[in-house]
Amino acid sequence: MNNPIKIAVDAMGGENSPLKVIKGIEIHSSNTQNVFYNIFGNKHVIDSIIKNTKISKNNYQIVHTENSIADTDSPLSAAKKGKDSSMWLSIESLKKNESDAIVSAGNTGALFVIAKLNLKMIEKIDKPALSALWPNKNGMNIVLDLGANLECNEKNLVDFSFMGAALHKSLFENEDAKVAILNIGSEELKGNSVIKNTFQILNEKKNPLFEFKGYIEGNHIMDGNVNVIVTDGFTGNIALKTAEGTANFISSELKSAYSSSFLGKISALLNIKNLKNFKKKLDPRLYNGAILLGLDKPVIKSHGSTDEIGFANSLKVCEKIIKSNLIDKIKKNII
Amino acid sequence: MNNPIKIAVDAMGGENSPLKVIKGIEIHSSNTQNVFYNIFGNKHVIDSIIKNTKISKNNYQIVHTENSIADTDSPLSAAKKGKDSSMWLSIESLKKNESDAIVSAGNTGALFVIAKLNLKMIEKIDKPALSALWPNKNGMNIVLDLGANLECNEKNLVDFSFMGAALHKSLFENEDAKVAILNIGSEELKGNSVIKNTFQILNEKKNPLFEFKGYIEGNHIMDGNVNVIVTDGFTGNIALKTAEGTANFISSELKSAYSSSFLGKISALLNIKNLKNFKKKLDPRLYNGAILLGLDKPVIKSHGSTDEIGFANSLKVCEKIIKSNLIDKIKKNII
Repeated sequence: MNNPIKIAVDAMGGENSPLKVIKGIEIHSSNTQNVFYNIFGNKHVIDSIIKNTKISKNNYQIVHTENSIADTDSPLSAAKKGKDSSMWLSIESLKKNESDAIVSAGNTGALFVIAKLNLKMIEKIDKPALSALWPNKNGMNIVLDLGANLECNEKNLVDFSFMGAALHKSLFENEDAKVAILNIGSEELKGNSVIKNTFQILNEKKNPLFEFKGYIEGNHIMDGNVNVIVTDGFTGNIALKTAEGTANFISSELKSAYSSSFLGKISALLNIKNLKNFKKKLDPRLYNGAILLGLDKPVIKSHGSTDEIGFANSLKVCEKIIKSNLIDKIKKNII
Repeated sequence: MNNPIKIAVDAMGGENSPLKVIKGIEIHSSNTQNVFYNIFGNKHVIDSIIKNTKISKNNYQIVHTENSIADTDSPLSAAKKGKDSSMWLSIESLKKNESDAIVSAGNTGALFVIAKLNLKMIEKIDKPALSALWPNKNGMNIVLDLGANLECNEKNLVDFSFMGAALHKSLFENEDAKVAILNIGSEELKGNSVIKNTFQILNEKKNPLFEFKGYIEGNHIMDGNVNVIVTDGFTGNIALKTAEGTANFISSELKSAYSSSFLGKISALLNIKNLKNFKKKLDPRLYNGAILLGLDKPVIKSHGSTDEIGFANSLKVCEKIIKSNLIDKIKKNII
């Protein structure tokens, strides 16, 4: 390979790992070129899986680790005991410039703390933020913060706006980034002082990275009029999970409506094609995981319960972020 | 009538009023007994509608008001200029003990401010809260606060727990109230200090009104394991509106999936019955509006865009609240 991009992969995190991780690499590597995978985890287990895949031997190396971090570990205990874990070592390979970005489907809190311990913050940014993709009527939103910081000041929210816009530009290069602050009303006078101050700052300082669209209410997140939604980590986490719960509730209610009668069963069969299209659009694996922004190297969290397709999508996000120079975009634009 | 309960009705608020209000009264009055309506609004318009309904002349009086508050009025300007408005006068009739509760489909902010100006707080309660019904798998949740207080301390959240539980017991007398605090994790160590302190207080002080179930995350709001969900007004408003936006997004995506093919159209026809059952369960008119808790008289906000069926449901909620002595329940139990 000619100067490949290098992705560090924590193979041991999340459900059904390392199987889904290796299968995810197989899917991703078959659709791309010039990507090298630094795989961290139990070499014996990984070897026995990888030999049955089509992944070229030139495209990866396995770094053996005995230890791995469990989903039940607290972030601090993981950071203390986990220095020889697959998660720690894969992040350390970023610090040593051996990899350009890392993907893990493991313990989110631990990943966050270990990344903060090992990597530097981007200059002028005080707090990293957890961001994720969230579908809207026209495409995808970036929403941040989703839980890294329970309390944020106006400087944090302004930083999040720039980081989120840079991420949107990296993932969807042909679209213009449009930033809005999540609030309980759309008028200027609504919200607490942090939100109002953020509005003021973003409204006054025009910038080349994004258009500032003011406030957005929860019921308009998916309308598609904006595509970067900024909030503190407490509110963002509640909003994301409430949307997830609502979607689950509706689909389980729909299912019981469909299966409650013979007629329902027949028409459910007829509907398979339409529902497939619908499900494809809403497939959570397409916008799987989260991206930690604010550190000087990209840290990508794949969802613990995702499968190989979801993991492959996280690898694709990773690749896009590296190729589009996300970190440079943030550095150049941050105020 | 034999000592009827008296409901003050602001006939001029919300879309299509007073038509939907009077039709709502007609629906409600045909399903109940011993309720008297004090109707506030433009007598000429109301008279021309009411004479074509089956509402008995013995069951209402109309108090003529020239003025009414617009949805575009700010709460403070409404409170200043609105002393002869239908909203102000209907609330004043509570203060004068001429009515037992009030329903309005008008401007929420104005209703809230005018109610606070005219009515007393229940002793020991510092802040009123806006609460609403939100469906879950087993029945209905009460969620509060939904926007009355952007910032809350632990005393407020404890008060909300008692008020929410009392409301749940009033509306669903055969169910046990189970209270949870909305948070970003279910473990005790999660959340900000206000949330943790509230957990501590509720966990230590057992009470006869409700069972305390700890924290709940956004994705479990609709699971039905708890039925009173407590949060600050900022978070509650974002959560409720995000759920609404998600439901709208899914139904519009579903609609386009169904209408995208001939097969889809046929099976949509077959499905009408099932979808009707589904829609009935999720019909927002069934849990229409919000209830302001903490004042010494019940104030019920019907949704501005609801129709006569939604307004009739608000009247039913009002009736239940009065008949079950909600305010006394709160007074007796509050700590």
